[in-house]
Amino acid sequence: MAGVFGVDGSLPSSRMLAEELGVSRTTVTVAFEQLLAEGFITVRQGAKPRVAAAVIGRDLRAGTPSQAGAVRLSAYGERIRGIPAWRDDAASPLVADFRYGVLAPSDFPAGIWKRAMNAAMARRPDRLSYDDPRGLKRLRMALQGYLWRARTLRCELDQIIVVSGSQQGLDLCARLFLDPADRFVIEDPCYVMARRTFAGTGACPVPIAVDRDGLQTELLAGVAARLAYVTPSHQFPLGGVLPVARRRQLLDWARQNDAYVIEDDYDSEYRYDINPIPPLHGLGDSDNVVYLGTISKTLSPTLRIGYLVVPPGLQQVFATAKQLIDRHSPLAEQEALASLIESGAYESHVRRARRLNGERRQALLNVLHLAFGDRISVEGANAGLHVLVRFTDLPQSLEAALIDEARRVGVGVHSAAPLYDPAMTEARRDRISLVMGYSALDARQIERGVQLLAQAVARVLS
Amino acid sequence: MAGVFGVDGSLPSSRMLAEELGVSRTTVTVAFEQLLAEGFITVRQGAKPRVAAAVIGRDLRAGTPSQAGAVRLSAYGERIRGIPAWRDDAASPLVADFRYGVLAPSDFPAGIWKRAMNAAMARRPDRLSYDDPRGLKRLRMALQGYLWRARTLRCELDQIIVVSGSQQGLDLCARLFLDPADRFVIEDPCYVMARRTFAGTGACPVPIAVDRDGLQTELLAGVAARLAYVTPSHQFPLGGVLPVARRRQLLDWARQNDAYVIEDDYDSEYRYDINPIPPLHGLGDSDNVVYLGTISKTLSPTLRIGYLVVPPGLQQVFATAKQLIDRHSPLAEQEALASLIESGAYESHVRRARRLNGERRQALLNVLHLAFGDRISVEGANAGLHVLVRFTDLPQSLEAALIDEARRVGVGVHSAAPLYDPAMTEARRDRISLVMGYSALDARQIERGVQLLAQAVARVLS
Repeated sequence: MAGVFGVDGSLPSSRMLAEELGVSRTTVTVAFEQLLAEGFITVRQGAKPRVAAAVIGRDLRAGTPSQAGAVRLSAYGERIRGIPAWRDDAASPLVADFRYGVLAPSDFPAGIWKRAMNAAMARRPDRLSYDDPRGLKRLRMALQGYLWRARTLRCELDQIIVVSGSQQGLDLCARLFLDPADRFVIEDPCYVMARRTFAGTGACPVPIAVDRDGLQTELLAGVAARLAYVTPSHQFPLGGVLPVARRRQLLDWARQNDAYVIEDDYDSEYRYDINPIPPLHGLGDSDNVVYLGTISKTLSPTLRIGYLVVPPGLQQVFATAKQLIDRHSPLAEQEALASLIESGAYESHVRRARRLNGERRQALLNVLHLAFGDRISVEGANAGLHVLVRFTDLPQSLEAALIDEARRVGVGVHSAAPLYDPAMTEARRDRISLVMGYSALDARQIERGVQLLAQAVARVLS
Repeated sequence: MAGVFGVDGSLPSSRMLAEELGVSRTTVTVAFEQLLAEGFITVRQGAKPRVAAAVIGRDLRAGTPSQAGAVRLSAYGERIRGIPAWRDDAASPLVADFRYGVLAPSDFPAGIWKRAMNAAMARRPDRLSYDDPRGLKRLRMALQGYLWRARTLRCELDQIIVVSGSQQGLDLCARLFLDPADRFVIEDPCYVMARRTFAGTGACPVPIAVDRDGLQTELLAGVAARLAYVTPSHQFPLGGVLPVARRRQLLDWARQNDAYVIEDDYDSEYRYDINPIPPLHGLGDSDNVVYLGTISKTLSPTLRIGYLVVPPGLQQVFATAKQLIDRHSPLAEQEALASLIESGAYESHVRRARRLNGERRQALLNVLHLAFGDRISVEGANAGLHVLVRFTDLPQSLEAALIDEARRVGVGVHSAAPLYDPAMTEARRDRISLVMGYSALDARQIERGVQLLAQAVARVLS
């Protein structure tokens, strides 16, 4: 506009401009009002409008050409920059993908969930406003009962914080407990997203080796750290249950070191031989334990609901942090889950899911035995939604070739190696170990998948 | 158990124990298996089970009594600890609550939303797994089109990050851009949750005064900061539109200082006099601008969906941060919103909501004029879902009394004073200013509410 009307910025009157452009004067007036509001023109009483001084002589979209996006991040941003980008596995469909943490849509109680969501959406509140950052009271009450019935975990209502999946629970713990240069204990091997989340704060991981009984707590002696992240009911990925003696040792260590224990109870619902193992929380006093549960393994990871049980003194700061992070989790899903728990439908569903996954597990164990016999050892098969398969005759050096060859014939397999601390010795991973999740697969896929894996193994060994 | 069976921990055989207790041997065996798995007993081949050594002589729930919950938080935790706890306003119902940010459930397109959610829930994916941290591709495509149509904002698909409400967008920016002792520019007065979120990182606010045209960008000269948070389309709370000259000044400042501008476009859909004001994003190059939008003001704050448009070089690190924070936002709501935008139903709804809120606004302006006449000045009434009401004859010293008295007679009113920087001079708030939101109220509530407010004013002045 400055270009058309000259450097002095004077504009024709709305009447003149309307005539010149052949439009109504109202149209020009509306346009002038918009330009005025956005600050492109100025108007003084009785005078013609003028182009605003700051606009004259500048091209609308010019400005100095930018320095090809020099990125300026916080220390946190720089630390997490190296984490590999999320990849969409669905892009290349496979005969069977033994990825851990994926569920079968056929297991999902679609009808019950849909009814519960519709009931939640039909409820008309007095007003639409932000809700309690700790989560819907109705859901926290339902969870309080569920935790007592299913996990023998007793807590006050105010200790429960509903989070958007257990990942958000980990992130809250990381932010509230860790500073740069602090130390945190992590299982080795471990759940990598937990390691990344805690390390994102700038704190340093102290990897402690895991054996068939979980974290080797005797190695904690003399270790100073602010926090320990553990999976005591079912170690991820090796599958061990932390025995009571080690539980005590861990809690004693935490008390002596003024450290918090983050107990990730991610899949304790799936126990095939005995009753579910009670959580650490409740053994001794629990002032040092943050308990973390999720519905990602029982209902679906796409719903994004998890829950924390925090020590009494920390309720308020967790609620404030949750509010600063995202106000609260979406209400409809919270309401629907509450109604499923209240009616008993959730626990019926968990029993059904346990039976279905028990069948998948058995199918996998059978076909693994048939295909590989003594050439493999299988660990952690009594619980959860995955097994750890160790090949006795496949050196680690063949891992990349095996994974590629398996993918070529249509099977997704996933190495346990990246779950070990990168700085630790290679000694204990001299043979290929695979984490094989089965919860998204049917028996036919499991069978065919293992057969194809056997072909791939034969080919890389030949 | 150690107590009953003595300090040496020897247990009777399962056969003997079954006889002694009068239960089946299977029952005892199952119990032994559970105790074994949890580490309470040990079993050696051919020998009787024994109580595990670590358990002997210790009471199950003993441990050292804890030091009444000494809380050990990170620096972040300590910084946010002082933030007041969330309060449930619904607990004390009022005739009218002029709280900002609350919507009327009757405005919500319940039928359309429910159908869209049911269609989303009916879609059966191949598997239930974590999705793209940037958000559902379908929603990002829909938003890309919407932003161009409604906001003349052009961006690549990969620049859009779906977040769980604009609060999470603020938190992501805070974490990725700010380190302790950094400085950030914030409007004065401002949206307090933004100030808290950025200050949570340990960075220091640099408050810059706002007038009727928004941020006084000439005051930025000589200010060094890493980030500036602005509401250019509709300053919160004063209501000004940042004129184009100031926009350029702000972007020039950002370029010279290598700083990011966070443009919070929280309610630009509500513009009653002219067309919506185009965003900063797109004026000049946008390598320094992060655009932040939300559906909390158009659909509902309970759904928790917002979106960022980030500079091209930052796509990956925002996606990684979102993944570490909560993996991704719930899928069903994302899918439903995508379908509303695709069908045009979202934009029809926004037009309807604009008309309804325009009527509320007019009702409020009329009744305020009737009740107070020249004793008040009203600012920011041309846009958004609130007005700023300044009383010319009510000194700040009466504020607490007025708010209490109003509440006593059934009206919720909210002072603008806490939105000003606490460290700044009291000069510009020598008279009471109220932020009056109207989007949750009907005409009758608005009328009655203002009448009751007038009574309260009369009483505190008498």
